[in-house]
Amino acid sequence: MAITVVGSVAFDTIETPAGRMERCLGGAATYFSLSASFFTDVRVIAVVGEDFGKRQEAVFQAHKIDTRGIEHTAGKSFFWEGSYLENLNEAKTHITDLNVFASFNPKIPDAYRDSEFLFLANIDPVLQRRVREAMPDVKLVAGDTMNYWIKDHRPALLEVLKGLDILLINDTEARMLAGNNNLVQAARAVMALGPKALVVKHGEYGATLFQSDTQNGRTFRAPALPLEEVVDPTGAGDSFAGGFFGYLASQPEQSPAAFRHAMFYGSVMGSFACERFGTERLQKLTRPEIDDRFNLFRELTHLA
Amino acid sequence: MAITVVGSVAFDTIETPAGRMERCLGGAATYFSLSASFFTDVRVIAVVGEDFGKRQEAVFQAHKIDTRGIEHTAGKSFFWEGSYLENLNEAKTHITDLNVFASFNPKIPDAYRDSEFLFLANIDPVLQRRVREAMPDVKLVAGDTMNYWIKDHRPALLEVLKGLDILLINDTEARMLAGNNNLVQAARAVMALGPKALVVKHGEYGATLFQSDTQNGRTFRAPALPLEEVVDPTGAGDSFAGGFFGYLASQPEQSPAAFRHAMFYGSVMGSFACERFGTERLQKLTRPEIDDRFNLFRELTHLA
Repeated sequence: MAITVVGSVAFDTIETPAGRMERCLGGAATYFSLSASFFTDVRVIAVVGEDFGKRQEAVFQAHKIDTRGIEHTAGKSFFWEGSYLENLNEAKTHITDLNVFASFNPKIPDAYRDSEFLFLANIDPVLQRRVREAMPDVKLVAGDTMNYWIKDHRPALLEVLKGLDILLINDTEARMLAGNNNLVQAARAVMALGPKALVVKHGEYGATLFQSDTQNGRTFRAPALPLEEVVDPTGAGDSFAGGFFGYLASQPEQSPAAFRHAMFYGSVMGSFACERFGTERLQKLTRPEIDDRFNLFRELTHLA
Repeated sequence: MAITVVGSVAFDTIETPAGRMERCLGGAATYFSLSASFFTDVRVIAVVGEDFGKRQEAVFQAHKIDTRGIEHTAGKSFFWEGSYLENLNEAKTHITDLNVFASFNPKIPDAYRDSEFLFLANIDPVLQRRVREAMPDVKLVAGDTMNYWIKDHRPALLEVLKGLDILLINDTEARMLAGNNNLVQAARAVMALGPKALVVKHGEYGATLFQSDTQNGRTFRAPALPLEEVVDPTGAGDSFAGGFFGYLASQPEQSPAAFRHAMFYGSVMGSFACERFGTERLQKLTRPEIDDRFNLFRELTHLA
């Protein structure tokens, strides 16, 4: 079933111990779409500037991603520059130029309206809510956010959480959102705000799925793959979300077992994203490679 | 098969967000022994002072732990005082009084000499090596160490590593020992120093087992249990080691599958240790509780 995703399509300049790449195609919606496209149909809502041309469009087309919801306007696309020189787990932001993103007003193409799955990538919660409300009939809604929105735009974020089935955030964000340092207690507090399921990402240590009691699910931990070399962690979280939600959308029902498999596919896609700069690895990925790595994750965690 | 363990038996005064406990029975050898005693026979080599009396002795006796190797001397036992007020993952040490431990010279009772398993808990590597050399016929040797020995006693530690089959340390220690921030590369470098297997403990995120290629093993990740309340993390690593090595010693052969199960039992015992101050939880633990929690760990990680 098709997923509509709203979020950023951007250019990133990234420096890591492995080197420096100028103006990679990036943005949360880009990583998410490429990752989810291996599992199901994906439709993007975003805004880009005149610097987004045929080469960038071709990346989406190669993965049969619907780009009719990407609005082209005068000016430059969202640009981010950051580095991971001291700590591969945390980006140091040098430049954030919102550019055309500053006046982004998501428009939903009619062709997207029958999407049964909706992913609200990390953008202003006011926009997340607008898209959520414009698509009231979706079957499952997942979303992401970040420390900035949690700290300084809490009321708007709380409105978004009410309309979410699944929230995907990292440890620090979960603890900050709940105001509680214990992860189990924090998860319960976050789910009381709306989401029936919470995925907490632990970076190189994997991710934990919490589900509210009404979901009859169980807490589940997926590891991250111990990688010989992390070239660039940018977009690993969005790639995780794409694998997780893409897999869920590909299943006939979102059973507890489907959620557990989705956690593994999330970890699989996150691990690939780190192997090259930007979306390079996701662009060249094949389904057999995904299946092989899924099996590797099973070996990494299963007793037999 | 019996394990001989050499290490500290101590008194700890501990402060955590859950409260403060004065002079709990502690020390690496104590946590290790209690934990391993649920799986196999355990024999302790340590030194204590006059403050170690019948009440403390009874804790070991209740678990059928052989204490003939605990030397009683004039003076006070090793004393440690620390707190975890800001960060449950890292102790802040306030007092370390070595006391009788300062002149500890491990003596191996004849009755211990047929032990097939040897655990060298975190003590001066000079003493670890002395015990290792005094028991040349053991079948499997595992050990622990810490940042202090890695930084300031490296040559002595390197001698110990040559005689180890399995090293159990945490992330920071593995990276420090290898001089490499990438965990996979660090693990390979550490195994090149001697140990055929390396267990890296990630605190609340679990632990990873690395095995050298000659061991035909695979990398394996065991999670930690997401706990509603961590009362006191003191001794969690030693309890992990006790569950891990105790289980291995209880098996007819140390197969790759036995190693994976051992990782789970290590995590199980580490999780119990955190639930009460000091060794209180381990003292009252039952085998059915261990088996139940093992199943919980399986549910936490297995797809089906």
